[in-house]
Formats: sequence, structure tokens, C-alpha cells
Amino acid sequence: MKTQETGAERATTGRSPQARNGIRGDQPYGAPQLDVPYQLNTNENPYAPSDTVIATIAADVASAATTLNRYPDRDFTALRHDLADFLRSESSVALDPAQIWAANGSNEVMLHILQAFGGPGRTALAFTPAYAMYSEYARDTLTEWTTIARRDDFTIDLDAAATQLPELAPAVIFLTSPNNPTGTALAPGELRAILDIARDLDIDGGPALVVVDEAYAEFRREGTPSALELLADYPNLIVTRTMSKAFALAGGRLGYLAASREIVDTLRIVRLPYHLSSITQAVARAALKHRDELLSQVAALRAERDALVTWLRGLTVNGEPMTVAQSDANFVFFGKFEDRHAVWQGLLDQGVLIRESGPEGWLRVTVGNREEMTAFKNALVKELGL
Amino acid sequence: MKTQETGAERATTGRSPQARNGIRGDQPYGAPQLDVPYQLNTNENPYAPSDTVIATIAADVASAATTLNRYPDRDFTALRHDLADFLRSESSVALDPAQIWAANGSNEVMLHILQAFGGPGRTALAFTPAYAMYSEYARDTLTEWTTIARRDDFTIDLDAAATQLPELAPAVIFLTSPNNPTGTALAPGELRAILDIARDLDIDGGPALVVVDEAYAEFRREGTPSALELLADYPNLIVTRTMSKAFALAGGRLGYLAASREIVDTLRIVRLPYHLSSITQAVARAALKHRDELLSQVAALRAERDALVTWLRGLTVNGEPMTVAQSDANFVFFGKFEDRHAVWQGLLDQGVLIRESGPEGWLRVTVGNREEMTAFKNALVKELGL
Repeated sequence: MKTQETGAERATTGRSPQARNGIRGDQPYGAPQLDVPYQLNTNENPYAPSDTVIATIAADVASAATTLNRYPDRDFTALRHDLADFLRSESSVALDPAQIWAANGSNEVMLHILQAFGGPGRTALAFTPAYAMYSEYARDTLTEWTTIARRDDFTIDLDAAATQLPELAPAVIFLTSPNNPTGTALAPGELRAILDIARDLDIDGGPALVVVDEAYAEFRREGTPSALELLADYPNLIVTRTMSKAFALAGGRLGYLAASREIVDTLRIVRLPYHLSSITQAVARAALKHRDELLSQVAALRAERDALVTWLRGLTVNGEPMTVAQSDANFVFFGKFEDRHAVWQGLLDQGVLIRESGPEGWLRVTVGNREEMTAFKNALVKELGL
Repeated sequence: MKTQETGAERATTGRSPQARNGIRGDQPYGAPQLDVPYQLNTNENPYAPSDTVIATIAADVASAATTLNRYPDRDFTALRHDLADFLRSESSVALDPAQIWAANGSNEVMLHILQAFGGPGRTALAFTPAYAMYSEYARDTLTEWTTIARRDDFTIDLDAAATQLPELAPAVIFLTSPNNPTGTALAPGELRAILDIARDLDIDGGPALVVVDEAYAEFRREGTPSALELLADYPNLIVTRTMSKAFALAGGRLGYLAASREIVDTLRIVRLPYHLSSITQAVARAALKHRDELLSQVAALRAERDALVTWLRGLTVNGEPMTVAQSDANFVFFGKFEDRHAVWQGLLDQGVLIRESGPEGWLRVTVGNREEMTAFKNALVKELGL
């Protein structure tokens, strides 16, 4: 038996390989994983799978395991079929399975998009505040990163976009809808306006790509359309989704997208072969079988969310009514606090972990179950001295 | 219900976004997935999991599924502990779990390595013939790619390496041991010599990184050391492994590596958060529990391989004895044929799919079970008219 402990010490006296420029000194991304009673910081769904769902997952995994010595279906044909079927039922948009792509979480879906359509000499852009990971995907793919600020009310200034987008000439434009961390869905007119501008740009002879990140789409308010409805009109549109939130499958890591066949075929070039395990495919398909049960919890969360927004709007901070962004998601963005970190810490001291996110002064809280919401409200009232 | 079929046709009349330079026109990587009786082309393990292994996997997945609504442990602490424990028992090298990294297949492990230590202005290198995917990882990370040819007998010319490596100044050197597609493990002296050269290079103030790809290490001949034994001496060494081959878990997608803590900490910067699902972690850990059973099949495959090498060496091609590379893996590399494609096709016509791989004239066949080997031998005898 070699004693590597001794050896490892010896090794540290040698030189270590140096990370490339551009990541040297960076820290790994990730919210703190703290062991507290109420974890309302990563927009997880509070409803664990039922025994019925777990039994299907276990049975389908056992079935898939009988051929685990073989590589998985590289093109996950059956899963793509099931995802297209789900989108048809959820958004009334019919898609061919060849228009669907999936990967280990939306993270990897976004990486594939920028590996294929970003890269050196190309720029990716978001309207900030937006999801904080986009700039990491850009860094990891050597894509230049730039932003256009939203208005103070978090809407997009379309006149400014019409001027700035042709100047910045982004190859990829991220639109988060519902937005994260603010929670509000894009108005359909805003989305069409951006798509039209992007269509007229010239990126190596093609239009700019617009990625509408609908990670939280299933939580949107009644009557809000999905960007999926625009796929037929815009060959430069990708709509991404995830099973982490509405399907309560954050641990399963299944993100996906819908786009033209041409775009999906291009993503196939950069995917690592067999990136989706047989087991991941089986688990996602098992959850999709139970979509009625799993999505029924979305209605409960929406009701909880709307009640939380109403309650927060009734509060007063520094003599002013609390500002609360309209939410189409499973989280609520509220402020503004003179010292948001103090409020965040005050809640954490009471066992409630939320998120400091977006512009200074704002906080984001995940919509949990009734007990979690009561704990949050009580902690906030106490912290604010109301 | 929108009729996207109509819409999709309409969309194809618009312009599609253009892929970045460097991948435009490329084809997705992957061996043909043909439905034939004997699939001996991707070095899969022929032994499907037993009912006992499947039962453990299903039970452990069911347990992990109870919290699937939550994100997985981003640092897969328990899995890293189990992998370190396995390496200790397999190679008698003691490692701290903090020296272990894992991802969705060795593919993603290699991507992480080049995302962190490759990149624009840096070069990755292999001694060819080598595993064909390395150049794809380089392409995907904008790393320059170069090669040094092995001798005709597939050994590394150390004198040439000592001259060329300082000139080429690669940031990352891939050494495949056992090599793919040839099958032979590096001699320990060869590995140390390359490591010493790499240690003396200056890549932004650090040494060059040497990645020893031990995907097939568990099949190596008795007495052949693992590169793991050198980790204590070389802070510029990474040893990669996979559960796809010896553990017969190709469908589960679990690749991993051992290196210094410093290197692992750097890889954490470029990993996508939560890249390993709770389920993948559970399945890998379930298989590791049954390592004695799973690895007992390695001995059977080694015996089958050695018998195949002996048998092939007894054949005559064009009046010459067949040349067969020494194999430390679960595949055998043999030749040379004037028209290897004709031989490959002749076998395929008899239901036996092998691989055209490496230099012209050579073929690679996966070591399967007794029935598969008999089918392969019969088909080859018939094809060669022996």
C-alpha cells in the first residue's frame, strides 16, 4: 500500500499546472448549500415525488439497467418523442421530435448552444438583471459577453434595443421569460420585437440566434403565451425548458429545448457522444408519464405565489410600500432594502435561507409549501420589526 | 392546436443561424449504431448486470428519488469517497476523496480538463494512433491540436519526444494506456520519461499536464502498474478512469479521474453546477458496492482476449502471419489488410460489426463472450477464405 498522503505533500512542493487565462483565480459557481430548516434560495419545488412516481422511476430504471453494459441511445429518440408530446399538451404547439434537444440540465443545453453558435469573435448578450450563469457559459466557450440594462421596472427598453443590438451584433441573445431573478414573463410584443431585430442582423451570413429561457414557464400566469408559439415564424429562435422546476426533478438533471431541425442538427455536432445516460433518459420518461400529477402541484405553487405577492405588497419598508415584481415563476423578487445583506442575514439567523440576487437592494425568495411560506413571513416580519 | 408542421416548412424559407467557424460542416462523432447480431465495435462489456446488481440499483435509485425535487450534492462527496476506496483496492494507491473528480462519462472529464488547462493559445497533444475523441475535445475548447506519430510497432520514440515536446510546448499531453485502438499499455519507463519532460516545460509558469487515460486499465496484464502509483511524484499528472468498461456501466455514464487537490480544485471552476445527477451518483455507488462481482468478469474477458490474440497470431494473411498488437484491454488490434474496408464489410455481411480504426490496414475487434468470439472467428475465417 502506497501512502499517498505522504506523497501528496511531497507533490505540493513541485509546480502545479496553471489554469488558462480567463479562469485563473475564478471561484466555482453555486449558491451556498447551507443546512438550515427552510431552503428558499435555489427555486426548488417543495413537493418531493410521491410513492407512485418513485415506484415508476425505480421500475423503469430497473428495466433500463438490464442493458447498462451497452451505451445509451445517443439520440435519445424515445425521450425526444415524449418531450415533444408534453410540449404539445402544455403549450398547444405541435413539434416534431427532431426539433427537440436535451442534455444534463439546462446548463449543458446552454453550453451546447454557445459551443455551436458562440465562440471567439462572437458575442452573447442578455438584458440585465438576468440569470447569472449566462456569463459563465460565455466564459467557458470563449464567447464575448455583453449586457443591455433593463429599465428600473425591469422591462426591456425596445427603442434602446433597436439602437444597441445592431451596434453590438450579438450572435446569441438570451431572453429569460419568466425572467430570473425578477420573475416576470416577457410581453409577447417585446419578444417579437427582439426576434425581428435579431432576424435582420448579419452574423456570418445568418441571423442572430434568440434563446428564450423558459425554465419557469409552467408557472406563468394564465393567458401568457409561450415562446414556443413563435417557432414556426422564426428560424432563429430556441426555446429552452427544464424538468427541474415544474416537474420537481432538480436532482434528475434534464434540460431541453425546441428549435428548428437545422439548429438541433448543429447542436449534435458539439454534443459529447452518449451525453445522456440510459438512466437519465429512463427517469425523465418516467416523470413525464406522471405529468398530470406533477404539474397539478404547479397550480398550488402559483396560488401560494400570488398570495405571497399580495402579502408582501401590503408591507411597508422605511415608510414606503414594498416593491414586488410581478411573478410568473416559483419565486418572488422584492425590495428595496437599504441593506439587503442585513435582511438576508436576519432571515438566515431564523433558519430561512433566501437569495441576494440581481440589483442592489433586492431579495429573491423561492415559493415553497404553506409551512415554508409561514416561516418566511414570520421571519421577515420579525426582521423588519413590523 | 397550432400546426407546427406547416410552420416548420415556412421557417425553413427564412435564414438559419450559422454555426461558428471551426465546426461548420462537421459531422457528429460516433460509431455507426447498426442493428446486427454481434456488436463488437465499441468495446462494450458483454456481461449485462445480474439481477442482484439491478436490484441494488433500483433500490438505491428509489431512495435517491425521494429527494429528486432538490438539487444533487454538487460535490458528490459520497461518490468520490467510494471511488477513492475502489482505486485503493484495485491499484493499492491511497488517495484522498478530494483528489477524485467525476463527470458524465470520460468524455466530460476530458472536456473539463481542456476547459481548464487548454484553450486559445494552448496546444494539446497525443501520440498517434490514439483515441479519436481527443481532437474533438480540443476543437470544442478552442485548444490547438497536434500529434506525434508512434513507431510502426506503436511504441513511443522517446528520443523524438524529448526533441519535439519542448518545440511543440503542449499544455496537455494525452497518453492512453492501455492505448486505443492498439490495446497495449505503456511501459512504466515510457510514462516516467514523458512526465519528466513535461515537468520541465514552461506553460505560463507551470509544467505541462500529462493525462494518462486508463479507460481500460482494469484489463491490463498481470504485473503492469497503473499510473496512479506515480501521482505522489508528479503534481502534473492526471489519471482518468471510467466505469463504462470493466464495470460494464457504459449506459450509466460515469467517468472519473485522480490527480492533485490543486488540479481538482481548478476543474471545479469550469464544471457546470450540479453536472452529476443524484441518480447518476446513486447508480455509480450501487455498482461500486458490487465491484467484486462485476470485476470478476474482467478475468473472464482477459482470458478470452489472450485466447483471441493467440488464435489470430496463428492466422496467415497474404502469405504472412497476422500481426496482432499485444492487448491490455478488452479489444484486439490486428492486421494488416490490403483492403481493410472489404474485410470489415465482409464481417458485417455475416452479422459481425467490428471497427475500422487507427492506421490504414488495421482492424479492431471488441472482446465479447464465448458465443460472440466464435461468431467473429467463423466470420473472419470465411471472409479470408482460410
